[in-house]
Amino acid sequence: MSEILVVGSIAYDTISTPAGKAERTLGGSANYFSLAASLYSKVRVVGVVGDDYAEADYEMLTKRGVDTRGLQKQKGKTFHWTGQYKDDMNEAITLATDLNVFEHFNPQIPAEYKNSSYVFLANIDPVLQLRVLEQIERPKLVASDTMNFWISSKLPELKKVLAKVDVLLINEGEADAITSKSNAIASAQEILKLGPKAVVVKRGEYGFVLYTKEGYFILPAFPIAEVVDPTGAGDTFAGAFFGYLAKQNNGFELATLKQACVQGVLLSSFTVQAFGVERLRKLTWAEVEGRHAEYLKVTNL
Amino acid sequence: MSEILVVGSIAYDTISTPAGKAERTLGGSANYFSLAASLYSKVRVVGVVGDDYAEADYEMLTKRGVDTRGLQKQKGKTFHWTGQYKDDMNEAITLATDLNVFEHFNPQIPAEYKNSSYVFLANIDPVLQLRVLEQIERPKLVASDTMNFWISSKLPELKKVLAKVDVLLINEGEADAITSKSNAIASAQEILKLGPKAVVVKRGEYGFVLYTKEGYFILPAFPIAEVVDPTGAGDTFAGAFFGYLAKQNNGFELATLKQACVQGVLLSSFTVQAFGVERLRKLTWAEVEGRHAEYLKVTNL
Repeated sequence: MSEILVVGSIAYDTISTPAGKAERTLGGSANYFSLAASLYSKVRVVGVVGDDYAEADYEMLTKRGVDTRGLQKQKGKTFHWTGQYKDDMNEAITLATDLNVFEHFNPQIPAEYKNSSYVFLANIDPVLQLRVLEQIERPKLVASDTMNFWISSKLPELKKVLAKVDVLLINEGEADAITSKSNAIASAQEILKLGPKAVVVKRGEYGFVLYTKEGYFILPAFPIAEVVDPTGAGDTFAGAFFGYLAKQNNGFELATLKQACVQGVLLSSFTVQAFGVERLRKLTWAEVEGRHAEYLKVTNL
Repeated sequence: MSEILVVGSIAYDTISTPAGKAERTLGGSANYFSLAASLYSKVRVVGVVGDDYAEADYEMLTKRGVDTRGLQKQKGKTFHWTGQYKDDMNEAITLATDLNVFEHFNPQIPAEYKNSSYVFLANIDPVLQLRVLEQIERPKLVASDTMNFWISSKLPELKKVLAKVDVLLINEGEADAITSKSNAIASAQEILKLGPKAVVVKRGEYGFVLYTKEGYFILPAFPIAEVVDPTGAGDTFAGAFFGYLAKQNNGFELATLKQACVQGVLLSSFTVQAFGVERLRKLTWAEVEGRHAEYLKVTNL
């Protein structure tokens, strides 16, 4: 088994959706990713929390075997995002972003993490993503995510990141924004020219497109009739995808990438069934296997 | 082989998309449906055209073996729709609707059509859809489509139609509008309560959900990097779907419905590659088979 390093945000989120509201529920890309990836592989996490960060919230990760020595605790408050989903559960409306200690986050990779072979750069400033990569000795596989804010404000830096990553996992709208295309296939083709060997275009409730030079692959999401909160679905997908790749540890086989995407679909379908990380933290492997069988039944010809 | 009757619109469309513009290109639900369905089964069409309707446009159908005796020619102009697609190719913006002879369309089913065993009610006034059904002796399978205009203006009449149809094929947004749900699975479950034994929720570039009491099935669309004009994709899907069902003529097997949906995906993927019916009218069976093999490759685990 290979060690995964994830660098991303740790947050408390206040979220309202048509299904209800959650106040200061645990969130952040690094938490979703770590909870998902730790079902497959050893995970090391780097992030920053404030002095309000609850002991139980560290424990949620350590209970799953996640190495949290890379979580810096700083004076001040933990990052707090306030958001809303209206009818379109595919689109979050940001009401407030209180960066707090996350504002001056400068990821320091602990010495004992520097030999990590799988590195996931969650959605943070591309300048910081580059700084993380400089601190890793010899990564075997690097994947990253990003968002519209960086695409519009730091595209040159983002392109430097893309030149160094093997896999980009990105939302469909963001893929289109990077490439000025309006179609997942066309965008993925352009993104491959920027460096990545594979792109996973995440389409929310419509699933994903996996695009590589060797071939591509498209499947829908696992259908959920009652979505409670879509927050973190993309980070959960990334965690399951990357966790599976690290567990298999057989390089860059298209067949492995396909199965990794399916794991992403399955785990993210649980995340959206409750607010924050509530469903994901209780998830058992038996539940994943049950849903896997159902997924094959409803998508395979 | 069973005979399919389709009742729908015949139109000239003026369409602009990011890929260009087409003036008075041949369209209308009955044309798209008939061109697609006639690759599988015998088709009989009922509709209304004006005295400007070109001889060559009848011939397009008769060359494919479609029985056009049900096309009434009336004084005046053929229905003319003017529409536009901007960045979102999933959403048509109507600029003008010149109903012309279509305004007082009153479908008369020719005596020789009354024994049709497969009946497709394309998107027309639900009052007319009911009037069509009254004229058919003993249909074996009835399917229908509709649109937001009828959902908001004639929901009680539409529900009477749904009580009489076996399959509803409908866009995702329209399915949600009928049921006040915001999710294809939830909407499909509600629609089954209104009468249909199966619902096909069409999701444009994201494919479809097939939902029945016996099970459901979800797949993406065939990926097209350069969509020229999405007009008619849904009617093409319906034509291929229904044509395949009539050809198999084995009732209501889930396995048959699944394969019928795949035929819908394949044929509609050709329609969007050119304006109007241009790509569909030239389509060969060998092309469909080639794309079928590719589709299986990129969607099957």
